[in-house]
Amino acid sequence: MNANSGLASWNDRVAKQSIRDFVSRVTTEGGPDFVPISERIAVFDNDGTLWAEQPFYFQGLFVLDRVRVLARQHPEWKDTQPFKAAIESDMKALAATGMAGLAELVVTTHAGMSTEEFERIVADWLDTARHPKFNRPYTDLAYQPMVELLAFLRANDFKTFIVSGGGIEFMRTFSEKVYGVPPEQVVGSSIVTKFEPQGGRPLLVREAKLDFIDDNDGKPVGINKFIGRRPIAAFGNSDGDFQMLEWVTAGTGPRFGLLVHHDDAAREFAYDRTSFVGKLDRGLDEAPKRGWTVVSIENDWNQIFVEHTDRLAVQREPEVSVSVPS
Amino acid sequence: MNANSGLASWNDRVAKQSIRDFVSRVTTEGGPDFVPISERIAVFDNDGTLWAEQPFYFQGLFVLDRVRVLARQHPEWKDTQPFKAAIESDMKALAATGMAGLAELVVTTHAGMSTEEFERIVADWLDTARHPKFNRPYTDLAYQPMVELLAFLRANDFKTFIVSGGGIEFMRTFSEKVYGVPPEQVVGSSIVTKFEPQGGRPLLVREAKLDFIDDNDGKPVGINKFIGRRPIAAFGNSDGDFQMLEWVTAGTGPRFGLLVHHDDAAREFAYDRTSFVGKLDRGLDEAPKRGWTVVSIENDWNQIFVEHTDRLAVQREPEVSVSVPS
Repeated sequence: MNANSGLASWNDRVAKQSIRDFVSRVTTEGGPDFVPISERIAVFDNDGTLWAEQPFYFQGLFVLDRVRVLARQHPEWKDTQPFKAAIESDMKALAATGMAGLAELVVTTHAGMSTEEFERIVADWLDTARHPKFNRPYTDLAYQPMVELLAFLRANDFKTFIVSGGGIEFMRTFSEKVYGVPPEQVVGSSIVTKFEPQGGRPLLVREAKLDFIDDNDGKPVGINKFIGRRPIAAFGNSDGDFQMLEWVTAGTGPRFGLLVHHDDAAREFAYDRTSFVGKLDRGLDEAPKRGWTVVSIENDWNQIFVEHTDRLAVQREPEVSVSVPS
Repeated sequence: MNANSGLASWNDRVAKQSIRDFVSRVTTEGGPDFVPISERIAVFDNDGTLWAEQPFYFQGLFVLDRVRVLARQHPEWKDTQPFKAAIESDMKALAATGMAGLAELVVTTHAGMSTEEFERIVADWLDTARHPKFNRPYTDLAYQPMVELLAFLRANDFKTFIVSGGGIEFMRTFSEKVYGVPPEQVVGSSIVTKFEPQGGRPLLVREAKLDFIDDNDGKPVGINKFIGRRPIAAFGNSDGDFQMLEWVTAGTGPRFGLLVHHDDAAREFAYDRTSFVGKLDRGLDEAPKRGWTVVSIENDWNQIFVEHTDRLAVQREPEVSVSVPS
């Protein structure tokens, strides 16, 4: 593949052209903007950038579902906050319990088991849970244009990383299958894990203690910690990604920053400056002067979600091409 | 390359054969021990495994040299511990200052600058400092057989990682050039880094605060945090690597653990059960029953150190083959 193929779900507009131009410049040997393969690092936010994040971060919905499962062994929860609010999906009462309430729910559902046990719990949930609006598995709400973009960059010898505020071990259960991003290229928030041999068998046990928050200022810090060099391209959708884009695009040489703007209420969701989840305010203001590309989902994407992976293999129809020369 | 080539600096003995056998088994498609490429993760300790570590960890020698440089602006240090001991290389007085003294030296030399500044300081030191016994740059004291082993594994589609108690940003300055291991595949100990825009320019600043110790129990924890899946092969040399080998070799399917035993006083150093740096005691006792391979440097390696990289290009002689059919 070269810099001009792929990206079939992207309409032929400025955003698609800016991606192609950047990739073409950094891969042109002998050109002024050529970047050696080892430096071709691209980082992607997850929630709202690679998959949907409404009506609430999917990992948050996992927490609520998980509380309901665990509630069977905890009858007292139906009268105790923050569990009562979670069981009843009463988001207003939940918000009233504040950060302490949310933290208690996260810890209750994410700690106290081995890393392998947690992985199984998440995988089971992803297999069975359905999105309230689209009635599809959450992993089916990955964005087809972004999956194509990941593949396009990799075909041009980029190494693609996820850098997300989401839980690192939550994302690692599906990142390879859904995005083609292996676990070792996922950076995220984490809780403390402890090495604890049990009955002669070495185990890693998840503790009820926060380790690292990979959001806002934490994103450049996480990139430096896990990747150890400055990427040349960053993709996000909210102000939680601002510092990541700022850090990446402040480096010398060719740089690329892109923000996905959710403006398609008909096919997905429309939200930005005042949204609780995925607020995009400063980013919209500063993108033009910083040279960042802003994607309009409504105008730039002719397909939003990936096809169901099971269906893909057996009955994929020829792509309907909506004025996309590719 | 296939599983039977490479490893020219390894004598044709059990250790070399065990490596070849393992790689052959996991790469034989259709065989009972075949491992898919994505799961072929190998982890290597650094100090004493990939390069030498005597008379003291090279990063420790960097600290002492750095204190001497900084002492020019701190005349008071020549009468203040732990600096006085560092300036005079008085290891006994230094040890007497305890962990607090050592921590003060590390913080003084490793924090208070941007990540880029620190990288430059380390690179300058590696360019100019010489090892006290061998009078060669420290990066020339990488072990040729281990560099061959890294390349051999990569040629068989392994992804090779460093997992070391050493400082992650210290190692990242040379890991790609010396070992072919890129920064994003280096796991190590770290101090806290903070995102701190200065004069409109985003900077990552190194703080005088410990973040993570990647040694002993910390090694499996670091592997889980940074890599996110269990490697199938682990290489170390000291009891600080014990839990890493334990964790890796306790997984299901084919597993490989290897310890380098420093028993060659003539060509390198001889130390094990009672050494302060690189103590290997429990590992020697348990390796046989755990099925770990123990490498005798004296008997298994026909060459110890890499050739100087500059000389390599211009005047490398044909390899002298010491009864090694390869």
